[in-house]
Amino acid sequence: MSIEQANNTAVNRMMEARPILKGVALARDVIPGMKDNLILHAGPPIEWERMSGPLRGATIGAMLFEGLAKNETEAISMVESGEIEFDACHHHDTVGPMAGVTSASMKVYVVENVEHGNKAYSNLNEGYGKVLRYGAYSKEVIKKLHWMNDVLGTALAEALARSDGIDIRALIAEALHMGDEGHNRNKAGSLLYLKSISPLIARVVKDNSVLSEVLAFIGDNALSVLNPVMAACKVMTDAAHGIEKSTIVTTMARNGTDFGIRVSGLGDKEWFTAPAEIPVGLFFSGFTQEDANLDIGDSTITETAGIGGFAMASAPAIVTFVGGSPQDALNATLEMYEITFGENKYFTMPSLDFRGTPTGIDIRKVVELGITPRINTGIAHKDAGVGQVGAGLVRPPLAIFEQAIIAYAEKYNL
Amino acid sequence: MSIEQANNTAVNRMMEARPILKGVALARDVIPGMKDNLILHAGPPIEWERMSGPLRGATIGAMLFEGLAKNETEAISMVESGEIEFDACHHHDTVGPMAGVTSASMKVYVVENVEHGNKAYSNLNEGYGKVLRYGAYSKEVIKKLHWMNDVLGTALAEALARSDGIDIRALIAEALHMGDEGHNRNKAGSLLYLKSISPLIARVVKDNSVLSEVLAFIGDNALSVLNPVMAACKVMTDAAHGIEKSTIVTTMARNGTDFGIRVSGLGDKEWFTAPAEIPVGLFFSGFTQEDANLDIGDSTITETAGIGGFAMASAPAIVTFVGGSPQDALNATLEMYEITFGENKYFTMPSLDFRGTPTGIDIRKVVELGITPRINTGIAHKDAGVGQVGAGLVRPPLAIFEQAIIAYAEKYNL
Repeated sequence: MSIEQANNTAVNRMMEARPILKGVALARDVIPGMKDNLILHAGPPIEWERMSGPLRGATIGAMLFEGLAKNETEAISMVESGEIEFDACHHHDTVGPMAGVTSASMKVYVVENVEHGNKAYSNLNEGYGKVLRYGAYSKEVIKKLHWMNDVLGTALAEALARSDGIDIRALIAEALHMGDEGHNRNKAGSLLYLKSISPLIARVVKDNSVLSEVLAFIGDNALSVLNPVMAACKVMTDAAHGIEKSTIVTTMARNGTDFGIRVSGLGDKEWFTAPAEIPVGLFFSGFTQEDANLDIGDSTITETAGIGGFAMASAPAIVTFVGGSPQDALNATLEMYEITFGENKYFTMPSLDFRGTPTGIDIRKVVELGITPRINTGIAHKDAGVGQVGAGLVRPPLAIFEQAIIAYAEKYNL
Repeated sequence: MSIEQANNTAVNRMMEARPILKGVALARDVIPGMKDNLILHAGPPIEWERMSGPLRGATIGAMLFEGLAKNETEAISMVESGEIEFDACHHHDTVGPMAGVTSASMKVYVVENVEHGNKAYSNLNEGYGKVLRYGAYSKEVIKKLHWMNDVLGTALAEALARSDGIDIRALIAEALHMGDEGHNRNKAGSLLYLKSISPLIARVVKDNSVLSEVLAFIGDNALSVLNPVMAACKVMTDAAHGIEKSTIVTTMARNGTDFGIRVSGLGDKEWFTAPAEIPVGLFFSGFTQEDANLDIGDSTITETAGIGGFAMASAPAIVTFVGGSPQDALNATLEMYEITFGENKYFTMPSLDFRGTPTGIDIRKVVELGITPRINTGIAHKDAGVGQVGAGLVRPPLAIFEQAIIAYAEKYNL
């Protein structure tokens, strides 16, 4: 099989994957290898000593949420004594935005690719501002997580159990016609999610006041659907992984310190990493570029699957959030055609005459042209405990694609 | 005051109007001059003899709904014997899409312009296909209307009564950033409406199964918010009406036979009319251009207020519904700057670098340039009883603008 054929197989599997949101369940019950003392995190694997502020903050928060520690000091000392294990979400069929911290008692979305049979998991979205995934861990943050787990999560689980599931590929396709790009702008997608889930939730929540709160929480959070979308992109890109000879990127992820990628033809746990960049963007009142942490999160799984920064031509209004002009957003998409294998069959952009989004990053093209993927992202404060400070644009370091090309040449004796 | 100053006043009042959806009530209780034997209809005034099929069909349907007649024959004979009165919705602060037929027992939205104090009303949206507003009046149509009045209408009324109302200008502004144009494409707007109303409805409907049905009905109808949007545009354009010397169009409306306009400086009941055109567009399976009725409906109040066909640059995906290409949609908006007074302060289009929508049609420019307003519209079958057959594009006849210019010259001795 030629490289071209291998890439064709990989990208077709990515596009033909049909991610259906099937349910919500406890992480410990569904995530492979989940344990009570295991903290999953975004990006490539990393040890505590090298973790950035927001990832440390989210870890402390998860330990408080789990009841593993009573306070920050106790949490840190437990970690330092080796009682807590860490691993990358991606090693457990899981993805999480920003810090991506997922612990055993958290409820997670279950997305199944009904075409190829693989599954992926992602936690529930907390909304904006002071939230665990940006490294905040105050009492209010933990209290909200408990409400999300006990009330929202239970409602979602019971609602989805009564349905055949929600077709997330169809939802993304529709949202791209409604000004979303699927990563930082999931406003339309989240409302499409509300539309699908609200009649189901209405049947299972008997208390009117609780029901009202749950619907308001889902509807008011323009990122409600981000996590199911990420899990959908994860099953799509996982379906493209492991194709012998393929040079297509199947993972892009950041842990707040390193940016890592994996490549379809280069094995399961082989990460190529280099220091992550600092996103440049627009900051919330009171914060500046100085406060920004290095790039963090598994949410680049969206760009890996051909949406997010790659579909910004569909989302000109996103510039009010990440900076730049609508023309820049259009140019971002156009540039990505240079480094991708094909155009998406299912994700089309009306503003480009319904052209498919650029899909399937080819490490050969990235290195040959020196064009790295465009990513739009939330920006975390660099210190633990603060939270989100803005949103902006970033790219991965070129070095990781060069490393991948070298590893590829070695593996395949080129 | 110069014409320019007058138009500035008119267009500023149009833009500064703040339409808030305040409630849902029985037409007979709130619409000025409403009576039990009065049928309000879209467009300029028209007598039964000259009414098109869909308007006749909707009239028959409303009489069946009201219990005024037991069947079609009885309804027609009552109309012919003069027992039923007709008047234009616009003469009663009301607007209705397509046939626009509104009768005393129907529930209607109440929209108040909290800036200038005027109000407008519009009925509840039935969705697509075989519906009263397209002239259908089968048992299923009437049954659905009763459910909408008794169940949906009651839920909406009680929900809105518990709130401060919903800001429809803000909703439109947001929807224009999400691929809507506010007339034929209200997909995002309807979901924003669902987002606002669902937590309120969740508090007032105690039966879970009824609540689920109501939320599904609102969420699944991508035109749910069209009627509040039309009432919002009505209070905006009414606020611009009656400015001495102004040449700004404050009403465009069609009854399925005639297209009529009114002009700010030319009095309250003075309509300029000419035969309506036939829209050209895309047809539902089984129907062709041959089936199309002449242009019908009050929904051109959206274009009058600077959205709809005038904002199509924001809604490239609408071409899948009305025909043409995304470039045509963009060109429609660009052309409308030629015949409008200004650019909207609140309704902006990301794809045009957040330029305001062309707002305030100036009859002088229309006649001087020979460019008539662009309208996108649903298409009704020409026979009573059938329903919607497609959607497309249309323009008003130039003659009505020429008539208005002559009347203006006479009134102001130019």
